[in-house]
Parts: sequence; structure tokens; C-alpha cells
Amino acid sequence: MGGADGAWSELTRHFGDIELLENARAVLAWDQQTYLPARGAEARGAQLAHLTGLSHRATIDPRVRTWLDTLEATPLDPIRAGGVRNLRRTVDRAVRVPTELVERFAALQSEAFGAWVQAKQADRWDLFAPVLERVVEVSLERAAAIDSAGHPYDAVLQEFDPGTTVSSLRGVFGRLQQGLGGLLEAIAARPPIRARPLSLAEAHQVALHREVTAALGYDYTAGRLDFAEHPFTVSLGTGDVRITTHLHEGDLLGGLSGSIHEAGHGMYEQGLPRDKVGWGMEGAASMGLHESQSRFWENWVGRSRPFLDWLGGRLAAVAPELGADTRWLYAEANRVTPGLIRIHADEVTYNLHIIIRFELELALFERQLRVADLPEAWREKYREHLGVVPETFREGVLQDVHWSGGAFGYFPSYTLGNLYAASLARALEGAVPDLWSEVAEGRFGGILAWLRQNIHQHGHVWDAPELVRRAVGERDSVSDLLDHLWSRHGALYGAVRPV
Amino acid sequence: MGGADGAWSELTRHFGDIELLENARAVLAWDQQTYLPARGAEARGAQLAHLTGLSHRATIDPRVRTWLDTLEATPLDPIRAGGVRNLRRTVDRAVRVPTELVERFAALQSEAFGAWVQAKQADRWDLFAPVLERVVEVSLERAAAIDSAGHPYDAVLQEFDPGTTVSSLRGVFGRLQQGLGGLLEAIAARPPIRARPLSLAEAHQVALHREVTAALGYDYTAGRLDFAEHPFTVSLGTGDVRITTHLHEGDLLGGLSGSIHEAGHGMYEQGLPRDKVGWGMEGAASMGLHESQSRFWENWVGRSRPFLDWLGGRLAAVAPELGADTRWLYAEANRVTPGLIRIHADEVTYNLHIIIRFELELALFERQLRVADLPEAWREKYREHLGVVPETFREGVLQDVHWSGGAFGYFPSYTLGNLYAASLARALEGAVPDLWSEVAEGRFGGILAWLRQNIHQHGHVWDAPELVRRAVGERDSVSDLLDHLWSRHGALYGAVRPV
Repeated sequence: MGGADGAWSELTRHFGDIELLENARAVLAWDQQTYLPARGAEARGAQLAHLTGLSHRATIDPRVRTWLDTLEATPLDPIRAGGVRNLRRTVDRAVRVPTELVERFAALQSEAFGAWVQAKQADRWDLFAPVLERVVEVSLERAAAIDSAGHPYDAVLQEFDPGTTVSSLRGVFGRLQQGLGGLLEAIAARPPIRARPLSLAEAHQVALHREVTAALGYDYTAGRLDFAEHPFTVSLGTGDVRITTHLHEGDLLGGLSGSIHEAGHGMYEQGLPRDKVGWGMEGAASMGLHESQSRFWENWVGRSRPFLDWLGGRLAAVAPELGADTRWLYAEANRVTPGLIRIHADEVTYNLHIIIRFELELALFERQLRVADLPEAWREKYREHLGVVPETFREGVLQDVHWSGGAFGYFPSYTLGNLYAASLARALEGAVPDLWSEVAEGRFGGILAWLRQNIHQHGHVWDAPELVRRAVGERDSVSDLLDHLWSRHGALYGAVRPV
Repeated sequence: MGGADGAWSELTRHFGDIELLENARAVLAWDQQTYLPARGAEARGAQLAHLTGLSHRATIDPRVRTWLDTLEATPLDPIRAGGVRNLRRTVDRAVRVPTELVERFAALQSEAFGAWVQAKQADRWDLFAPVLERVVEVSLERAAAIDSAGHPYDAVLQEFDPGTTVSSLRGVFGRLQQGLGGLLEAIAARPPIRARPLSLAEAHQVALHREVTAALGYDYTAGRLDFAEHPFTVSLGTGDVRITTHLHEGDLLGGLSGSIHEAGHGMYEQGLPRDKVGWGMEGAASMGLHESQSRFWENWVGRSRPFLDWLGGRLAAVAPELGADTRWLYAEANRVTPGLIRIHADEVTYNLHIIIRFELELALFERQLRVADLPEAWREKYREHLGVVPETFREGVLQDVHWSGGAFGYFPSYTLGNLYAASLARALEGAVPDLWSEVAEGRFGGILAWLRQNIHQHGHVWDAPELVRRAVGERDSVSDLLDHLWSRHGALYGAVRPV
């Protein structure tokens, strides 16, 4: 076999094996959050740390760099070139982090996850603070190992959204925040919409979640729906992408929109080019793009009037006690109410929850804020941005799972996702003219086919901004998002957009 | 650190890491049989094969043999000496099997498991036969690699029950078969007991299984009960031993006895010396001993009159429609009926199911029987030993999961387990005088404490025959088992034992 052909074949086989290890780790992590018995938590942490160490060692194998050197000196088609670019980044980052630190971080993640679950259940910040302090320290140690010269937050952003930086986020978030402020002000000046929460027995809710997500296009022969304290989606290997949900008996729409969100992630994973495992471009282009898929289905589709009309029909069949008239679902799903809980937030205030977290994470990483002062800083930010103040830790600083996993730098992905989704939706409406009438009939195949064609199948051949540009053309996603919110929420409240 | 101390510390750390890999493999295997979506089966096979290969490579690491050489030249306490003896056996066997063959066998196991599930569902032997042929060939290739000179079946027996051989089994099984023949003949001469199957809604059955297994002593903070086509128990690491069950809505006692069986395995695993992970003696002493624990709880306890009286009281609470008089449960649980299905067999005929499988496996391994002729050979053996003939593959040759996993040589463990259990029961009755009155009150702590003390906590310090000898003294387990069956089943039928 020739030099480049041989290097390509060795490289892809090697990363195919690493993928198997990562799959195994994903199975253990999925089980950790769904079915693991309490006393098995410590051993699970050790197992995950060991697998993480093995995977890290395989990634920094010096042969990998030799293969990459050879391939970088060879003209490659765009798909292979994208894979080589990604693997080079992965390896460059990995060689800078000692295996010992990788294993220590992995073990700490499991420990912190367990502590967070307990702390949140008991509403006790003191159960989580000491381990979170260690998570912050190890995260900073890791960021410094990856790039000792740059901003430590940039180092973690690169893992989730290559190319995104603190400074680019500040620009985008600033424009968005200003636009959202205007919309919120206009809505606040209008009469409020009264809440009309929807109750349904949990067993019926589960059946409904399964029916709806299957109708959207999530493939249950290659997936499952289970229950988790904090819902997530994970790929356990080819043909096995699992979603999770959390039911709220008294909040049918809230629970369902969570399942639709995860199904959006799941459909993206199910549409990735899994015939190219080990190529380095078979994964998601970025976590922002991942969130664009979940937020697109959850919001653009799942809170649209045609979708809710269709859902109303299904609800009338499942729970006739709700009555035949379910036109009020649209108002209920799109009420704008500054609140405490990110995952229950409406589309308008949602991004403020993200901006709060971004600012707090940045302050932690810049050592402007100590972990001990987080609860108070959290309350302060909520007062400032949303005008509400949590009375419990559970509704405040202990709300999200992310920090327990050391996933600093992840939160911005949600808003990046909303921005991408806004532009994707505009392109989709142009490309699928019958889109909304199909949705009103419970037909989602046209949407999924377009996403498969324009986003999913390309994996990570290009970084997310370029991939989205190819799908939607040159667009200003901040304007697209604000246009969407004005035309949906502004209109619902009868608010008039200033010219 | 001194030579032997250093070797011990390196050896146990190394096997502690291998244990983490084996745990990961167990999580993937558990999930494969409980929750894996259909389209994920192929990737799961590749993941399991890869982990198996990694574990094998770590086992044959030449440093391991150096550490063992050092330790074998050093006086060790019995616990460490037992561990070193076991690890030497494991390594000796592992070095003889090429890693390529190990991975091929593991991949084939996953493929064959999937084929077996499909074949059994469809009742189609032709879906399983071709892959089973390959399983037999690879198993023989493996047996020859382990020991090219001896009997190939002896090579696989050593993995499950060190010290057991074809020739020792022939002797024990011969005596047992003769004794069972006499008992069956005496029972057949008596009036039959009419079947009175017990139905209960599946949701109530699950609750009952959980209640009963928890009462026996299976610890749910370190375990779970899930559903599987073919129930099994697996340790996923310290503090995480999971059992599975299969419900039969129309056969409450059958399903429950399956859960009790698995809880017996589970309590053994939960009682093993997990503070010594990596020592080589922290596992089960043999699969025969493992089955002694499951069969002891399932039969000696679970089909005893005091237990069934207690269960009757619980049933009356859960399902008052069954009526207050549940004294007939004892007769229903101990009816002797030669049948087709091993796991539904009464205690008397059960061992004949095992002897049939032993004879068939032996014929396959001696190349006296071809896979293609298995269904007919199965029918022939059932006609000869039990006087019944399966009309479907599902009730015949496709009945058990074992061959799909290449687990030839495992079936004898069940009868070895019955034999050990018979002697353990005699010793227990001597050691815990109030045993049966406690059982009648739903108190099982005395039994579990004795098993923990005399069996579980010792792990694999001694091989099973020696461990049992230390627990019960010198006993003839064939006599103990026949005595038990005569006094329970003979008496139930009013059959008189010839002097």
C-alpha cells in the first residue's frame, strides 16, 4: 500500500478502535445517569476514568502524528481533508494534557455528578461547593495545559465550538441581548397571557412522547427513550442513539418539549455519516450545531401553531378530558415569563439564562469570582437580567448538570444553536414551500430530509459556521432570531416592533 | 519496596485495571440483553470484541508472568496464595489463545446471540444452525489451543469448574441418574398431582419479585432487577450486581422462582470479598458453586413448605382474589412432571435436562454429532431420558441461550450446583436450628449470614470442592441430593424408598 493510502488506512482503523472505546464509555455514562444503583457509583467513576485514560493514550500514540504528517503532505478530497484537520486538532489538544490529568478529570466528573445529584435533591449547596471548587481548579489546569498563553475560556470553547472565542461571543451576545431587551419591554407593556398548565398521567405522557418523537423522525429501531434526572442524548455506537426525558405530571408541554429537544439531538446523531467511522469527520460539527438541531425541533417546529394544532388533535385522542378545543395550546406554549429555570424558559428569555451562565463561567475562569460566592452572584445576575431571584439552590446555582461534568464553555452552544436554527428555519421555509401545511398534518419528513441533506450527512467535513453558510447562504443569524421572536412572540402579544 | 511486595502491588494494580475493563464489558453485555435497540447489535459486537481483546492483551503482558514467578517463589498467606494460583491459571490459559482468536470468538458470540434471539422468536432452526456451526468450530479451535493433548471438553470445563473432568462428571452423573430413575419410577406409580397454575397481572408480579428478593437479602442499593429474554445475573463492578427476570403472566410461581434463582447468584456476588479487587481470589470459586447458591435459594428455600406458607400470606395481601387458603402452593411448586423446558423443570427431572445437554455437548466436541443433526439428537435424548418430544425448535434445541455464547461446558455447573446445595443445606440445618421456623416468618438473615461466613467471603481462595468441604465436612453430595428429593418429592407423592 502506498504511503498516503497506508497512512489513511492505519489512521482510520486506529480511530475506529478509539471510537469503540468511546462507545463503551458512552454506554457506561448513559447507564450512570439512568439505571446505576447508588452503591455502584464509585466503581463506575473508576471504570470511566480507566476507559478515558485508554482512549487518551491511544489518541496520543506517536504513530498517529506520523500518519497525519503523511496525509497533510498529500492532496486529499474535502471529506478526508476535513477528517485529517479534525484529528490533528484532537491530537494536538490531547498531547498537551497529561494522561494522569485526563484520568483525574474523568474520575472527578463522576464524583461531582454524584455530589450534584445529592446536593440538588437535598437543596444543599454545601454538598456540592467543595467538589465544584476542585472541578474549577482541574478545568483551569486543563485549559492551561491546552493553551497556556490564551484566555482559558477560549481553550474550552474550542472543544465544543471550534473557532468560537470569548471575544466573538461577546459581540454576538451583546447584539442579541440588546434586541431581546427591546422585545421584552414591548411585551411587558402588553396584557399578560394567563398560564394554563396541562396535566396528564405519567404513563400517558410517556406514550405521547414516544408517539410524537417517532412521528418527527427519531428512529426507535436505532434508539430508546429512558428517564434521567437531567435529560440528555448520547450515541452509543452505530445504530444506537439514545434519548432521555424527565416527566412533569403537571406540565405536559414542558416535559414533551424536553423530549422533542432530545429527539432533535437524536435525529442529528442518527443522520451522521456512520459509514465513515474512524475518518474523523463522522461526528457533529460542533455542539452549537447540535443544539441548533434540538432547539430547531423543540421551538421552531414544536412551538409553532401548525404543530400545536396537530398535537391538540393527538391530545384529544389520548386525553379526551382536555376537551376538543386546544387552540389555546399555542398561547400556553409561547407565553413569555421571565423565570428561574432555563429548561422551562420561553424562547425570548431563554438566551438571557445562557448569557447569565456565560458571564458567571467567564468570571470563574478569570478568577474574578470564587466558587463560594457563586450562589450570591447567581441571584444577582438573575435579578439584573430577568428580574427574578431564586429562593432555593435547586432553582438557582444547583439547577444545571453541566458544571458537575466540568462542561464549562458548553452553555454558549445553546444560544449559538438558537442562532443557527433561526437561519436554518428561514432557508427551510424557502426550500420546502408546503412545510407548515405538512406539519399541521403531522408530516415532518420534508423537514428531516432537508436537514439530513444539508446538515447531518456532512458530519464535521466543515466547521459549523461554514457548514451553515453552505446550507443557508450569507445570513445574519442575530437578525433572523430576532425576526422570528418578534413575528411569533411579539405578534402573540400584539407588540409593535419599533422601526 | 521489596521484590515480592513490589510484585504483589504491581500485580494487583494491573489486575485491578483489568477488572475495570471486565466491568465495562459486563455493562455492555448487560445492556445487550436488556435495552439494546435492534440496529445497535452489530456495533455492540465490535465494542465487546475490542474490550475483550484489550483485556486479553493486558492478561498476557509478560510482566504479569515475572510478578507471578517472584510471588510463587515467596511464602504467602493462604489468601494471597489462592489469588496467585488463580491468576497463574488464567494467564497460562490466556497465553495459549492468540488475541486474534479471542476477538474473533467475542465477535462471534454477539453475532450468535442475535441470531439465536431471532431464530427462537421465529422458531427457525435454519437461522441459527450456520452460526452455531461456526461457534462449535471456534470453540474447538480454542479448546485445542488451550490443551491440544487432552479431551477438548476438559479444556472448557476448567474455565467454569477447575478440577472437574469429563471422567469425574461421568461417574457422578451416572450415580445420580440411576438414583433419579428409581425415584421417578416410584413417583410414576403414584396418583399424579393436578396442575394449578397461578395467574397475576405482570405489574403485581414485578412488585412481588422485588419484595421477595429483597426479603431474601438481595441488596437493591447495590443492584437492580430488569427484564431479559433469558434471565441472568452479572456483576458490573463493586456495589453493582444486577439480576434479570422474565415474567409469565399465567405462571406466577415459575417467574418468581426464576427471580429467586437470580437473586441467589446476586447475593453470592454481593458477598464476595470486593475489598480485594485485583487479588485474583475475589471472584466466585466456580460456576458450579455459583449455581449452588442460585439453586439453593430457588429450591431448598423457595420450594420449601415454610417458604411457600410465608409466600402464601404475602400473596393473599397482594392478590386477595387468590383466596386465603394457599396451602396447595407446596404441591404446585413440587409437582414432578417430565417436561420439555429446563428452567421450568421440577427438582427431580431437572438434572436429566442437564445430563441430556452434557451428552449432546460431549458428542459435538468428540465430533460424534454434527450441528445439522442436533435437533433430531435433541428429540431422541428427550424421548429416551424424559419420555417427551418437542414439536418446535423453540421448546427443543433453541431453548437455551448458552450455546449462542459458546458456553459449552457450562450446563454441568447446574447439576454440580444442585449437588453442592444439597450438602450445604444439610450443614445449614445443623448450624441454624431455627432455620425453618425463621423462613416461615419471612426471615432469611440466618441463612444468608451462614452462607456469607462459610462460602461468599472466601471468594476463590480455595477451589470449590475444598471450599465446600470446609463448610460441610466430608459428605457424599449425590446421597444428600437423593435424600432431599426422596424426603420432599417422594413424601409428597407418598412414594416409598426401597431400602
